[in-house]
Amino acid sequence: MAEQAERVVPLTDPPGAEEKGPSKSALKKAAKEKEKAEKAAKRQAAEEAQKKEAESSDISKNDYGELPMDGAWPSEFPSKEEVPRVQLPQLLEYFGDASRTEAPGGPHVVFRASVENARSQSAKLAFLVFSRGGASIQAVVAASDELSRQMVKFCSSVPAESYVLVHGLVKAPKEPVKSTTIQNLEVHVKKLFVEGKAEAQLPMQVADAERPIPVEGEEEAVDGRPIVTLSTRLNNRVIDLRAKHNQAIFAIKDGVVALFEEFLRSKGFRGIQTPRLLGSASEGGANVFEVKYFATKAFLAQSPQLYKQMLVAARFEKVFEVGPVFRAENSNTARHLTEFTGLDMEMEFEEDYHEVVSLLEELMLFIFNGLKDRYARETDLVRSIYHVEDFRLPSAGAVPRLPFSEGISMLRAAGEELGDFDDLSTPQEKRLGALVLEKYGSDFYVLDEFPLAIRPFYTMPTAATQASYNPASPNAGYSNSYDFFMRGQEIMSGAQRIHNAAFLEKRMREHETPVDPMGEGLRDYVAAFRAGAPKHGGGGIGLERIVMLWLGLPNVRLASLFPRDPGRLTP
Amino acid sequence: MAEQAERVVPLTDPPGAEEKGPSKSALKKAAKEKEKAEKAAKRQAAEEAQKKEAESSDISKNDYGELPMDGAWPSEFPSKEEVPRVQLPQLLEYFGDASRTEAPGGPHVVFRASVENARSQSAKLAFLVFSRGGASIQAVVAASDELSRQMVKFCSSVPAESYVLVHGLVKAPKEPVKSTTIQNLEVHVKKLFVEGKAEAQLPMQVADAERPIPVEGEEEAVDGRPIVTLSTRLNNRVIDLRAKHNQAIFAIKDGVVALFEEFLRSKGFRGIQTPRLLGSASEGGANVFEVKYFATKAFLAQSPQLYKQMLVAARFEKVFEVGPVFRAENSNTARHLTEFTGLDMEMEFEEDYHEVVSLLEELMLFIFNGLKDRYARETDLVRSIYHVEDFRLPSAGAVPRLPFSEGISMLRAAGEELGDFDDLSTPQEKRLGALVLEKYGSDFYVLDEFPLAIRPFYTMPTAATQASYNPASPNAGYSNSYDFFMRGQEIMSGAQRIHNAAFLEKRMREHETPVDPMGEGLRDYVAAFRAGAPKHGGGGIGLERIVMLWLGLPNVRLASLFPRDPGRLTP
Repeated sequence: MAEQAERVVPLTDPPGAEEKGPSKSALKKAAKEKEKAEKAAKRQAAEEAQKKEAESSDISKNDYGELPMDGAWPSEFPSKEEVPRVQLPQLLEYFGDASRTEAPGGPHVVFRASVENARSQSAKLAFLVFSRGGASIQAVVAASDELSRQMVKFCSSVPAESYVLVHGLVKAPKEPVKSTTIQNLEVHVKKLFVEGKAEAQLPMQVADAERPIPVEGEEEAVDGRPIVTLSTRLNNRVIDLRAKHNQAIFAIKDGVVALFEEFLRSKGFRGIQTPRLLGSASEGGANVFEVKYFATKAFLAQSPQLYKQMLVAARFEKVFEVGPVFRAENSNTARHLTEFTGLDMEMEFEEDYHEVVSLLEELMLFIFNGLKDRYARETDLVRSIYHVEDFRLPSAGAVPRLPFSEGISMLRAAGEELGDFDDLSTPQEKRLGALVLEKYGSDFYVLDEFPLAIRPFYTMPTAATQASYNPASPNAGYSNSYDFFMRGQEIMSGAQRIHNAAFLEKRMREHETPVDPMGEGLRDYVAAFRAGAPKHGGGGIGLERIVMLWLGLPNVRLASLFPRDPGRLTP
Repeated sequence: MAEQAERVVPLTDPPGAEEKGPSKSALKKAAKEKEKAEKAAKRQAAEEAQKKEAESSDISKNDYGELPMDGAWPSEFPSKEEVPRVQLPQLLEYFGDASRTEAPGGPHVVFRASVENARSQSAKLAFLVFSRGGASIQAVVAASDELSRQMVKFCSSVPAESYVLVHGLVKAPKEPVKSTTIQNLEVHVKKLFVEGKAEAQLPMQVADAERPIPVEGEEEAVDGRPIVTLSTRLNNRVIDLRAKHNQAIFAIKDGVVALFEEFLRSKGFRGIQTPRLLGSASEGGANVFEVKYFATKAFLAQSPQLYKQMLVAARFEKVFEVGPVFRAENSNTARHLTEFTGLDMEMEFEEDYHEVVSLLEELMLFIFNGLKDRYARETDLVRSIYHVEDFRLPSAGAVPRLPFSEGISMLRAAGEELGDFDDLSTPQEKRLGALVLEKYGSDFYVLDEFPLAIRPFYTMPTAATQASYNPASPNAGYSNSYDFFMRGQEIMSGAQRIHNAAFLEKRMREHETPVDPMGEGLRDYVAAFRAGAPKHGGGGIGLERIVMLWLGLPNVRLASLFPRDPGRLTP
């Protein structure tokens, strides 16, 4: 531009504005811009000089900044011996030791944390909130003879959600801090380095994720704060999961797994890993995902059902498995996932399949009581957001166990119309749950002896049904099978299985939805019983369902880290 | 036929043999057959009468037979109060209590077991071997005033592998039994019912499965007994798994999982469940299985790598996962499976990624020592079949940790030719394992600081490499990454990961096999680090590999309950 402005100017403007020389006004403009550029260059030089001077005079220049790519600590950083590393959740406990708080000037600590927020009060004072592992604390960055205003400015502009390394002094605040979990201590920052910098504009705020998901049709702002939909939260799941109640949900979920395994191991069960890739759609062709498998195709397991039974036949006696299961159901409801975690068990029993039911009841009580004992804080935290009644357990420890026929009677007495052998609809299940709660005071109960016709082909008929067995009748009698319910919703299905190969094949042929009886997958399954199998039973529990119903979450997706449904495969 | 024979016979046979009346010879034949049928009917009637008489005179008729379909016990069976139920593995312990052995006539017990074999000595005496849970005992069925010859015959003809319910008297045998694990006791059968009958001809024998799989080319009979190939065993896996050493292998495998979880939980790690169904082939398009997912497609996770990192970014701090992972590698080797179990962990660390390495070393030592303590019997049992040297652990507890460059030097000193930044071949890895064993006396060691160029894009370069970073050079320096080895074979790969989003994107673009940097799956992955992530590292262990190498198994398929390879999807 400057070069062009110095060209010779013709007297008349030739046609074709783009090719013509500069006009008078253009010349003026160019001159102005030249002047502007020179000024800018001067200003920049001045600023750089000032900055250099400021840096050289910045007494704190080695005390803040960004850590290198690999997050290595500055060599000047105090060693473990000089200053202890204490993480925020342990801070209160640590300073419960009075000897430490008496150190002159208060005790020094080094910790890593994320920044909940940062704001400057003045050029000389900034406040930050650090958090880690559910604990948060207020921090003060105050300019002094030992701490520069530059450092105050830097600290006040660290983007929220950044991960930082802090060296500070822990002191009692003038008055308790209300907005943090640690209220009687605050940190006076001495050094602060950014380990992982967050972008200033994130697609959503953690604070927005800490309110309940909106009920459909109520997706407007409340109290001037935006309502973030479930979909937006799931799209930004990493930020969403930082919300305190989400941390609690997944602590509880892991707690359920740990309690499940602890109980079953203590009873002599062995953990197993059965295949997810199957050669045939063993449990029925519907709702099964197909996989390209080299030159052929495979199917994803809908449950470890057939394999856990085969392992009982293989003399494993008592087995359990925790693993993903897949359902190709095109259902976009609040209760369905296409991938979820199955908690499965299967066992030999001695005399009667109620031994299995009793063990499963004991297992569930162990899990519920374990959650009460070990996860009371997390449960309360989630329930403070998703308000729900406390989960009521049977007072005497005896789980209500109702024959299916009694369930039907209770529903009829309450005005529902249904036949002896009808399957229950979801509303009917919930209704029955409410009736059981009213009568027995328990949110947890077992429905036993389901009609044979509405259970899978491998279900053992009751002795009475075997005696008068008529597969042609839709009212083919009852079976040694059971469902477990929490708050009126099914969490587990189980049964005694047929362990006699000939009868199993007969049932496969008779079953209303025949499952390719001679198919490869079932050929191996039946062969297991031809080789001599003990009588056995078991059950499969949906992990996400337990978590959802324990906490009263409005959607099962909230109990899955990265939920999968027909419309969602990411993140 | 009989009716036809009584028709009037024409003098000449009309043409068309099928329509003509019976010939003379046909009449003769028919008459003979009539006679035969009458004889057969008589014989049958006589047999039935005899059987009825035999039954009515069978003093033991209520003491043996087949249980009904559901395996319900006969009502005449002694109650728990009358006769205790003691399972075979507890029998020795139970009769260690001298007061019981002094009961008149010896103590009665009721137990369930499978039949290892059954043979008749004479019409009055049969021997059986019962087994359960690794214990076996000899049983005697002797005809007497209280036990019929019919019952002796029935017991001697129960097919091997059947599951039975037994009421018997436990006594000391005249001399110790050599072929059973319980040698100083035997059972005198009082009642025996078949709960699950095995077919007389099974496709393979458990005893045949209790010898090592044949080495290729040596598939002939040894000592007159058939050698059963791996393929036959896997085709009949339920029978194969009944072999004692297979029971031991999977007890050990579950032990590894339990120890892995126990250690990590004790260190504050949280169990997670990440999705197996992914929206994009995140870790590279090769070797990934494709799934039909409603109107679109999905991919099966090759590892939980990206998700466990995203969860560390989501403030989960320390996570672990045990779950199936899938590799669409068309490799039919003794070391590859298309589906195996990943033991994964990922964690924040404070100062240096060697904190992660140290924790992983401690984890592996915890597992190895746990196996030594808790699974010595199982380990010895498997090693008695697959002979292998004891697994040597570092004596002082300090795991040899060698920089990659030192590994190269050792190999070169041993005569191998390879460049500074070359990846090791499998034979070179085994060679190095042997050299380390020789030098450090340990079958377990760590190779640290691998060349950057041979690691995945998310691997953190070393500080030195960052300082002189030149991605164009094939010798781009080293990285903060490591492999763990057992007996010279890799069992785990891990690294410090890049937690800076901008640098991660740069590395993705530069990486030799670019992984669709703007693809959906990786978009969410990078977004996790844009939201502020701590520095972190971790590793992924192949569960089946640990089991295989701990026990010295010749094929990784032996460490999978139902192995999957490019040619096998069943059972």
